[in-house]
Amino acid sequence: MRDVAIIGVGMIKFGKYPDRLLSSMGRDAVLAAMKDAGVQPKDIQAAYSGSLHGGSLLGQRIFKDLGMVGMPINNMENACSSGSSAMREAWLGIASGLYDAAIAVGSEKLSALGGGVLPMEREDIEANEGMVMPALYAMRARRYMEDFGAKPEHFAKVVVKSRKCASKNPYAQFTKETTVEEVLNSRMIADPLTLFQCCPTGDGAAAVVLCSGDKAQKYTTRPIWIKGSVLVSGRFINGFRDMTTPEITVRGSKLAYEMAGVAPKDVDLAEVHDAFSIAELLYYEALGFCKHGEAIRLIDEGATDINGRIPVNPSGGLLSKGHPVGTTGLAQITEVVWQLRGEAAGRQVKDPKIGLTHCTGGGIYGLDHGACSIHILAK
Amino acid sequence: MRDVAIIGVGMIKFGKYPDRLLSSMGRDAVLAAMKDAGVQPKDIQAAYSGSLHGGSLLGQRIFKDLGMVGMPINNMENACSSGSSAMREAWLGIASGLYDAAIAVGSEKLSALGGGVLPMEREDIEANEGMVMPALYAMRARRYMEDFGAKPEHFAKVVVKSRKCASKNPYAQFTKETTVEEVLNSRMIADPLTLFQCCPTGDGAAAVVLCSGDKAQKYTTRPIWIKGSVLVSGRFINGFRDMTTPEITVRGSKLAYEMAGVAPKDVDLAEVHDAFSIAELLYYEALGFCKHGEAIRLIDEGATDINGRIPVNPSGGLLSKGHPVGTTGLAQITEVVWQLRGEAAGRQVKDPKIGLTHCTGGGIYGLDHGACSIHILAK
Repeated sequence: MRDVAIIGVGMIKFGKYPDRLLSSMGRDAVLAAMKDAGVQPKDIQAAYSGSLHGGSLLGQRIFKDLGMVGMPINNMENACSSGSSAMREAWLGIASGLYDAAIAVGSEKLSALGGGVLPMEREDIEANEGMVMPALYAMRARRYMEDFGAKPEHFAKVVVKSRKCASKNPYAQFTKETTVEEVLNSRMIADPLTLFQCCPTGDGAAAVVLCSGDKAQKYTTRPIWIKGSVLVSGRFINGFRDMTTPEITVRGSKLAYEMAGVAPKDVDLAEVHDAFSIAELLYYEALGFCKHGEAIRLIDEGATDINGRIPVNPSGGLLSKGHPVGTTGLAQITEVVWQLRGEAAGRQVKDPKIGLTHCTGGGIYGLDHGACSIHILAK
Repeated sequence: MRDVAIIGVGMIKFGKYPDRLLSSMGRDAVLAAMKDAGVQPKDIQAAYSGSLHGGSLLGQRIFKDLGMVGMPINNMENACSSGSSAMREAWLGIASGLYDAAIAVGSEKLSALGGGVLPMEREDIEANEGMVMPALYAMRARRYMEDFGAKPEHFAKVVVKSRKCASKNPYAQFTKETTVEEVLNSRMIADPLTLFQCCPTGDGAAAVVLCSGDKAQKYTTRPIWIKGSVLVSGRFINGFRDMTTPEITVRGSKLAYEMAGVAPKDVDLAEVHDAFSIAELLYYEALGFCKHGEAIRLIDEGATDINGRIPVNPSGGLLSKGHPVGTTGLAQITEVVWQLRGEAAGRQVKDPKIGLTHCTGGGIYGLDHGACSIHILAK
């Protein structure tokens, strides 16, 4: 398989755009990524479009008004991992030699949905009985408090860090800094998780242009290399007897590190799936940045701050940048590319060489149908 | 890229199953294909699930109760080409060397939808103004009558042939033979297309197990080889000045023939996207089985009958076998595999060596956002 480089990224500011067509948001991200890459429509040989609620043939609708109509276009869905799954198939298409250049785009318009965001399938017994995402994460937070002595303040600190990063990110949905008190005093959603500890709904789009290693220098002097690209399915939690170990992330990240030939200690920054405050802490551990139970020490010490030992979510993450579901994976890639290039301005991590992105999602049904995608990028 | 073989296929009888879960239909097709291939769950390294209306994480829901939960699972949507798009990504995964064996499954439950089948996107201006599929195909039929002297009887003959084939197909939705008179006397839907000339709505699932060429002999003595696998986007019709040339199919089939190193005359049978009677005639021409305007001669001469020069839709096609949208591409593959193996019983084409499948779909919006997938298989 061939080396694959990212040569361009782009996204729109996350927010609520009830009056915009979803396809036009995706198109803006595509245009930004293509401009960043310096490619023309004729250079792109295939497209992969990721979305949860995008409707039929979203990719074709995004690309047609750009005159990009002849190429293969695939529409991908993997819940929160939709965008990163699109990215992985684009990587595969190029790594295999089938294409020299391809684009992955993620777009989502949650503002169109009114209330519910994640779909309830008829067989999703747990969710239909009330175990929706905030409830599941609240149970995990309670268990983590019980087992490892975490306090609500630890969860709140994740949000304070998130908002501080996002205040320097012009693409983020929430850009106002906050305090531990404010986080804890916000409305209770599912005890112990308050409103500020839950990622917002919103709309957004992000796109990534990829090309074969041997063609990368034609377009850019600063390619970012895809060293690891992994998608796994499996258990969102490790059964109800071990709710604080996200089995799917532990297994997926091991595969990604192996593929990239790096260890957790080699990672200079990570964008992880902090859909709720507790989630970020659990993923510090699942991704190997610390041992199980030690995440509260990391957040207390500021180890995951922008200037810490292992900066996590310098973009503001899902909690503050926002989480337009199918977009998130590609927005994470976009942030890590900017960081590796040294283009992240006020939220720049100091001279990072290796970055990791992590998306995980899916309903709760039977515990066994999650999708988790992890990418390891290097400059 | 490596050679890829199909080592197992399976489907359920198409029909209406309002009381069944979609995931359980998909699971039955998967089990049938895996049994046919003689593979165990542990042999399958990746899955691609195709569906238009399948909802979130359908693939994961299909595979979890089989204990197939660790592997990468991607959910694909490309309207009528959803199943064949899943097939193509599975082919790519193996051809690239990433996987040794993978499975593609298509599942659809149109009976769950009530009336409408194809989704209406807000920007699908033509469809929202009334140019839904039957209307578009009726316009194409009128134009074809005007330009080439076709009569309603020619369209009806396509249906008579279709029902005759389906009467020998235990997996078909409509298995009762019909006559030209009966077809023409059925209720008018969009002049000149009567009810019998429109494919039915229904439910169904089909699955295909693929593996690398070097591993195929471990499982089977009769591999079917994927010689061409093409997906293109583009114009469903060639603009309103040339409505009888399906540009996307003409272009896609040229690429598929080129990839497979064969010509239309080498094809021994084809399963084509006969969503309406006129469509089958147009695809005879677009796929190169005859020149533009000559399809009525082919149907008059019986050239596309099971015992004709180039048998088309021996399964009964979409018109009689049924068209559970995301399933169709893989049901076509299943039929061609059975035919190439000589297992099609009462509808067996005589000793075919090369078969073609053709799916094309998508709304009408702006004319430019179709998806067409073509596979060429050989024994």
